[in-house]
Amino acid sequence: MDIKYGFRRGEPVAQPNTANRGSDVWREDFLVIDGLQITNWDRAALEELRTGGVSGVNATCAVWEGPTEALRNIGDWYQLARKHSDLVTLASTVGDIVAAKAEGRIAVLLGFQNTSPFADDYTLVEVFHRLGVRIAQLTYNIQNVVGGACYDPEDSGLTRFGRNIVAEMNRVGMLVDLSHVGNRTCRDAIDASATPVAITHANPTWFFDTARNKPADVIKALVDRGGILGCCLYPNVLGGARVTREQFCEMVVRLVDEIGIEHVAIGSDCARNWDDDYVGWLRNGRWQPPSGDGDKPTWPSWPSWFTGPEDFPTLTEGLFDAGLNDDDVARVLGGNWLNLFETVFEGSA
Amino acid sequence: MDIKYGFRRGEPVAQPNTANRGSDVWREDFLVIDGLQITNWDRAALEELRTGGVSGVNATCAVWEGPTEALRNIGDWYQLARKHSDLVTLASTVGDIVAAKAEGRIAVLLGFQNTSPFADDYTLVEVFHRLGVRIAQLTYNIQNVVGGACYDPEDSGLTRFGRNIVAEMNRVGMLVDLSHVGNRTCRDAIDASATPVAITHANPTWFFDTARNKPADVIKALVDRGGILGCCLYPNVLGGARVTREQFCEMVVRLVDEIGIEHVAIGSDCARNWDDDYVGWLRNGRWQPPSGDGDKPTWPSWPSWFTGPEDFPTLTEGLFDAGLNDDDVARVLGGNWLNLFETVFEGSA
Repeated sequence: MDIKYGFRRGEPVAQPNTANRGSDVWREDFLVIDGLQITNWDRAALEELRTGGVSGVNATCAVWEGPTEALRNIGDWYQLARKHSDLVTLASTVGDIVAAKAEGRIAVLLGFQNTSPFADDYTLVEVFHRLGVRIAQLTYNIQNVVGGACYDPEDSGLTRFGRNIVAEMNRVGMLVDLSHVGNRTCRDAIDASATPVAITHANPTWFFDTARNKPADVIKALVDRGGILGCCLYPNVLGGARVTREQFCEMVVRLVDEIGIEHVAIGSDCARNWDDDYVGWLRNGRWQPPSGDGDKPTWPSWPSWFTGPEDFPTLTEGLFDAGLNDDDVARVLGGNWLNLFETVFEGSA
Repeated sequence: MDIKYGFRRGEPVAQPNTANRGSDVWREDFLVIDGLQITNWDRAALEELRTGGVSGVNATCAVWEGPTEALRNIGDWYQLARKHSDLVTLASTVGDIVAAKAEGRIAVLLGFQNTSPFADDYTLVEVFHRLGVRIAQLTYNIQNVVGGACYDPEDSGLTRFGRNIVAEMNRVGMLVDLSHVGNRTCRDAIDASATPVAITHANPTWFFDTARNKPADVIKALVDRGGILGCCLYPNVLGGARVTREQFCEMVVRLVDEIGIEHVAIGSDCARNWDDDYVGWLRNGRWQPPSGDGDKPTWPSWPSWFTGPEDFPTLTEGLFDAGLNDDDVARVLGGNWLNLFETVFEGSA
């Protein structure tokens, strides 16, 4: 499959955007995929994607949730997709994503940002795959049963159970996501996986040095096995709201030069429509007490040039300005994700 | 509390035992506690305890079970205890254990052999404590969210979540059990715990060198903080069915000499009334596929001198033969557990 849809400079927008946004680069036949969003989905949030020309998204539907709670969240998605079927469809295959684009709908891939929904049971990988989950991150911030994570001081590496989870994900056709995962476990999982894996939403540490971003050796290992890095706009991994569009897009171009155009994509990590309690939930889950009221976590400020999915045209303009051509931009904004999904979703049995 | 109940040599048994067992050492006023059994409980299994003079037991009610399945197992215990209230009571305190003994009933302490019932949620420690769970082992064989385990090649140590779990167990008054736990995580948990902890069922590696037994440095750290080692009769940690009563009891005596009488107890690891499918469940849980039929796990053979709880009198005779006196035997067979429970169950809030 050779899919190269994307934004193209100079084309008129199909729908008007707000005045100060790069609205001159959007065209209806482009297929844009965001590698990760963790939005509180409703019709308005889905319409933001349409405004921004995003036609596919990995939508997080569980982080700390165990099996039962994850089932409930997926049930909620079924309800939402049925209610707004004019606007959205739950996609299981690359064909579904392409078809949704042709129908003018947004293709949602259900994703987990943790393996908590699998509990201690590798057979739940297939269960959740049958329910539509296509992407799962192995750990979220802290060491779990599967492996180590970016914010725990020690990293066990991929555990015995973790090896079974990765093998089962390979078999059923579920993409392994290594964002928020510890570096040692990242390297282990890249080696262990029979198909390429992704870091859906993180940046290189050479751009911004934080435990959530990835060092060169992890990115090299990822790429050597055919994986993709989704460059991330979340302020805490971007380096804050003052980072400019030019700086971000120069990072993308340098990555393209260093690791190859086919390994670079976008995972915005947009988190729309939540109050501050939710960022507390992401931080603390139920694994630690919430911090005191004086130290309550809040959402960070986003850069003015990218505050949500409706700003993908602005980002696109920045990528052109930084020197990428039509083909490059098409790959970075969606084509690379599609190709990876095509490889991984097939599974082996 | 100064409790020194135990078996005493030369006293007649209250109830007849089978002919080849050391039935001349049982007396009704002795209080014997087994640090761990994982039996499939029914009236017959409870009667085996009474035959053996065991009046308190840490009964495992969850290993791989998540929160919901653990609730169901505890519900089953409530039913069983109500149905056989002439024979058994669920104990929450040391007072309950002593009272049960006076009433001629067996005091069951509900215990977990894993932290799977807590999932990712430290607040479930208090929930399960209120339901009667008084002892929880941090990990079972493989690395989990809380820490490393004896059969995973890497041990993360006690994780950030694990530290919260230990702190919460300390607070509510739930005993930390380090059997099946990795050595690094054992040392971390011993350091982290505000109250003494236990290894309810394992032996020193100097007696039998296997990953399930404990090296000298872990035992020393345990004892330095007031903890207890429950010497274990499970064949796989004993060194097989051919190990003699004399060898086992000499190990106990050497431990008494090395670490002090107050730190040595018994955790038989009796597993009565199960078929081989259950040992497969213990081995594999749901974290790995069961092995093929040709390699199906089976229960090991027990030594002829200790095949179940009814053989505690035989064991007692062996301890006397090895040179322990009345007071020593009383401590090893129950008094030490009672003292530890008294310290730990109080909690701190």
